[in-house]
Amino acid sequence: MRLSKLLPFKDALLEIDNFQIKTDLEEIDLKDAHKRVLGEDIYSFHDSPPFDKSAMDGFAIIAEDSFGASQNKPKEFKIIDKIGAGASSNKTINHNEAITIATGSPIPEGANSVIMKEFTSVDGDNLEVQSQVTPKENISPRAEDIKKEDLILKSNSFIRPQEIGLIASAGYSKIKVYKKPKVKILITGNELVEPTKTLNKAQIINSNRYILSALIENCGALLTYEHVIDDFNKTKEAILNSSKEYDVIITTGGTALSKGDVVVDAASEVGELKFHGVSIRPGKPAAFAIVNNTPVFMLSGQPVAAMTQFDMFARKFIMNMQGANFSDKIVKRTSKVKIPSTLGRTDYIRAVSDDESTHHVLNRGSGIIRSMVEANSYIIIDENDEGIDEQDEVDILFFDSMNFNR
Amino acid sequence: MRLSKLLPFKDALLEIDNFQIKTDLEEIDLKDAHKRVLGEDIYSFHDSPPFDKSAMDGFAIIAEDSFGASQNKPKEFKIIDKIGAGASSNKTINHNEAITIATGSPIPEGANSVIMKEFTSVDGDNLEVQSQVTPKENISPRAEDIKKEDLILKSNSFIRPQEIGLIASAGYSKIKVYKKPKVKILITGNELVEPTKTLNKAQIINSNRYILSALIENCGALLTYEHVIDDFNKTKEAILNSSKEYDVIITTGGTALSKGDVVVDAASEVGELKFHGVSIRPGKPAAFAIVNNTPVFMLSGQPVAAMTQFDMFARKFIMNMQGANFSDKIVKRTSKVKIPSTLGRTDYIRAVSDDESTHHVLNRGSGIIRSMVEANSYIIIDENDEGIDEQDEVDILFFDSMNFNR
Repeated sequence: MRLSKLLPFKDALLEIDNFQIKTDLEEIDLKDAHKRVLGEDIYSFHDSPPFDKSAMDGFAIIAEDSFGASQNKPKEFKIIDKIGAGASSNKTINHNEAITIATGSPIPEGANSVIMKEFTSVDGDNLEVQSQVTPKENISPRAEDIKKEDLILKSNSFIRPQEIGLIASAGYSKIKVYKKPKVKILITGNELVEPTKTLNKAQIINSNRYILSALIENCGALLTYEHVIDDFNKTKEAILNSSKEYDVIITTGGTALSKGDVVVDAASEVGELKFHGVSIRPGKPAAFAIVNNTPVFMLSGQPVAAMTQFDMFARKFIMNMQGANFSDKIVKRTSKVKIPSTLGRTDYIRAVSDDESTHHVLNRGSGIIRSMVEANSYIIIDENDEGIDEQDEVDILFFDSMNFNR
Repeated sequence: MRLSKLLPFKDALLEIDNFQIKTDLEEIDLKDAHKRVLGEDIYSFHDSPPFDKSAMDGFAIIAEDSFGASQNKPKEFKIIDKIGAGASSNKTINHNEAITIATGSPIPEGANSVIMKEFTSVDGDNLEVQSQVTPKENISPRAEDIKKEDLILKSNSFIRPQEIGLIASAGYSKIKVYKKPKVKILITGNELVEPTKTLNKAQIINSNRYILSALIENCGALLTYEHVIDDFNKTKEAILNSSKEYDVIITTGGTALSKGDVVVDAASEVGELKFHGVSIRPGKPAAFAIVNNTPVFMLSGQPVAAMTQFDMFARKFIMNMQGANFSDKIVKRTSKVKIPSTLGRTDYIRAVSDDESTHHVLNRGSGIIRSMVEANSYIIIDENDEGIDEQDEVDILFFDSMNFNR
C-alpha cells in the first residue's frame, strides 16, 4: 500500500495519537524516580509533620505566660527538661515552666508556643524571657503538609524533585512507575560511516545516529542502535526482528516518495503502513507504520528533516508511553520578520526566540545542521496560513519543551 | 566569625560569583556528550557534505538538456551508469546522457542537476524526462553545512542533540568536555529517618535527601550522600573530609541564626565563612563558606527553604563549574494577584505561571512540600519593591530554567 497524496499534518498526528500505547509498570527505588511517571496513586502513611514540631531552637512554653515580657521587663521561667534533635520529652509543662527544644523536635505536652533562643537568657535552670510570643508561634502543626491517608499524588503524575520529596514524606521508599520505553534506531544508508578524520569518496558521516540518540535520551527512553545496509530483505528483517524486542522503532533514510524506496516498502510488507508523505516542511516524506503492534516512525535521511520529524511525530508519543499526558508547549511571540508559506502545508521553521519575539534562521536547507545549532525553537506556520507578516503574533515551540497536563 | 546583620541577596550572590571555579577537562566519547560543555574549540576535519550530493532519488543530467520538457513533450536521455547509495561513478556525463543516482550519492562529473525519479520513465537504458530542472536543482552542494578547517563550535558551548550532530559531521568521535562536578550532600538532623511506613515518636522523614539529590542531578553533577549526626566534632570532620574529595558540599540543617548552631560553626572553624544570614524569604539562615578551596552551601532543614536556597545560590554555581555561562532565565508575566513584601528583602514566592500570567500558591509555610508540588515557578520580588499589585508585570523564574549565554 502506498498513499498517493500528501496527508495534512493534523491527520498524520491523529493517526499516531490513535495508536498511543503505554509501557508496563515496574517498581523502583524512590531515589531513582526523578523524571519518571507515577504508576499508582500515592496515599500518605503519615501525617507530615508527624507531630506539632518546633520551627526554631528555643524554649517550649505556655504563650500566655510570656504576655507583657520585654527586654526591660523579662518574665521568669523554670527549665524542667531539654529536648535535643530527634528526641522528645515525657514531661508536661505547667505555668511558668519551660523545656529547651531544638528545631524539628516535638512540642512537649502542655506547651503551645516556642520562644526563640535569641530572646532569652539562661542561668542554670532559670530562664529569662525577654519578648512575648503568641499561641502557636514557632510551631509547625502536625499534618500541616500532609494528612495521613490523604491522596497526595495521583497516578500518571510526572516526578520532579519536589514530588520525590512529597512521596518520601508520605513514607514510600519504593514506588510503581511506567517502564522506560525501549527504542530501536535503525539507520539506513550505505554511504554512512562513523565520525572519522578521513573520508573516502562517497562516504558521509552518520550524524543522525548521534542526533537521534540524544533526542531519544531527552524523552527518558532506552536506546539501541543498528546500521542497516540498503537492501530490501535486510531492512525488512531488521524491522521485523526489532518489532519483537522493542517498544518503538525509529528509522532514517529510504523514505523517498518515489516508488520503490526500501524502508517504507519493507515496513509495509511486514506491517500496516498508516501514512507516507505529509504536507509539512521540512520532512515531507515522513512515514508511520505499525509492525507487530510496534510503532515504526520513518524519518528522512537529511539530519534537519529527521530532527524536525522526530519533534513533530515521535517525541510526544515516546514521552506519553510513560504514562503522562504531555503536549507540545506552544507559546506566542512577535515575529520580527515576514515569512511566506504555502496554503495547505504546515511549516516548522528553525528560529531564534526569546521571551518576546522571534526570527527565523536564514540558512534553511534540510541538510544544514548548523541551522539547528543556531536555533532554539521552531516557528510553526499552520496549514491555513499563507505565511506570517512582521509583527504578527506567531506560534513558537521551544526545542525540548513540553506541557505536562495534570 | 558570625555576621550579625542580614546580607542583601545581591551581595550574597556576589560572594558566590567571586568564587566561581571550574572542573578539569576530560576526553569522552561523542555519544556520551549530550548535555556536557565543550572544553575545546572544534575545527572541522571535513567539508560537509564532503561532495556535491544528490538530494533526491533520480537521474543526474545536464539541466539545460531538460529545458522545455513536459509530460506531453518529454526529452530523451541515455542512461550510461547507475550510482547506488554509498557508491560513486567514474563516468562523465555528456549532453543527453543520464546516470541513475540515489539520495546522498556524489553527483557525477559533467552533471549539474538531478531530475526526480517521479518525473521520468525508464525503458532499458532509455530515459524519458517529463519535466525541466534548473542548474543546481536537487543538489546539496559540497560544504553547504560546514567548511573544512572552519571553527564550527567554540569551547564552552553547551551540547544539545544538534551540537552532537555537528561535531560528528566535523569528524570527531571523541571530544574534551568539563568533568561533572562531584557534589557531597551532608544532611544533619538526628530526627531524620529514611522513608518508612512506621515512625517512632520524634522521627521525621528525610525528604531533603531526595529533593536535593534530584536537584543536583538536574545540574549534571555526580552526587554522594551522608547523614551526619548533630555533633559539632562529627560535623566538622565530615565537612573537612568531604572538602578533600568533592568539588562542592551542600549541607542541610544546623544553620539557625541564634548562636551555637552546629553546621555553620563547624564550617567556620575549618574554613572561611563568607556569609550567614541573607535578607531573603524563604531561607534567611542560608550560609556559605570556603573550606579547602571547596564551596560549602549551607541550606535550611525545612524542605521548601532548602529547595529555594538551592535554586537561589547553588544551581547556577554547579552548572557554571562545567564551563558554560548559564544565568537564571527571568521572564516577565502579569500578576493576577496582589502580594505584599518588605522593603530590603528579596522574596522567591512559589507560583503557578503560564505564558502570560502568574499567581502565587497560597499555602506558603516553609515546611509545605505540597506548595512546591503545586508550583512551577517563583515570583521574584526585588528588595527595592514593597510588593506587587494585581496586573503588575513581575519577574518569574520557572523551575529548572536557565539561559545559556553564548
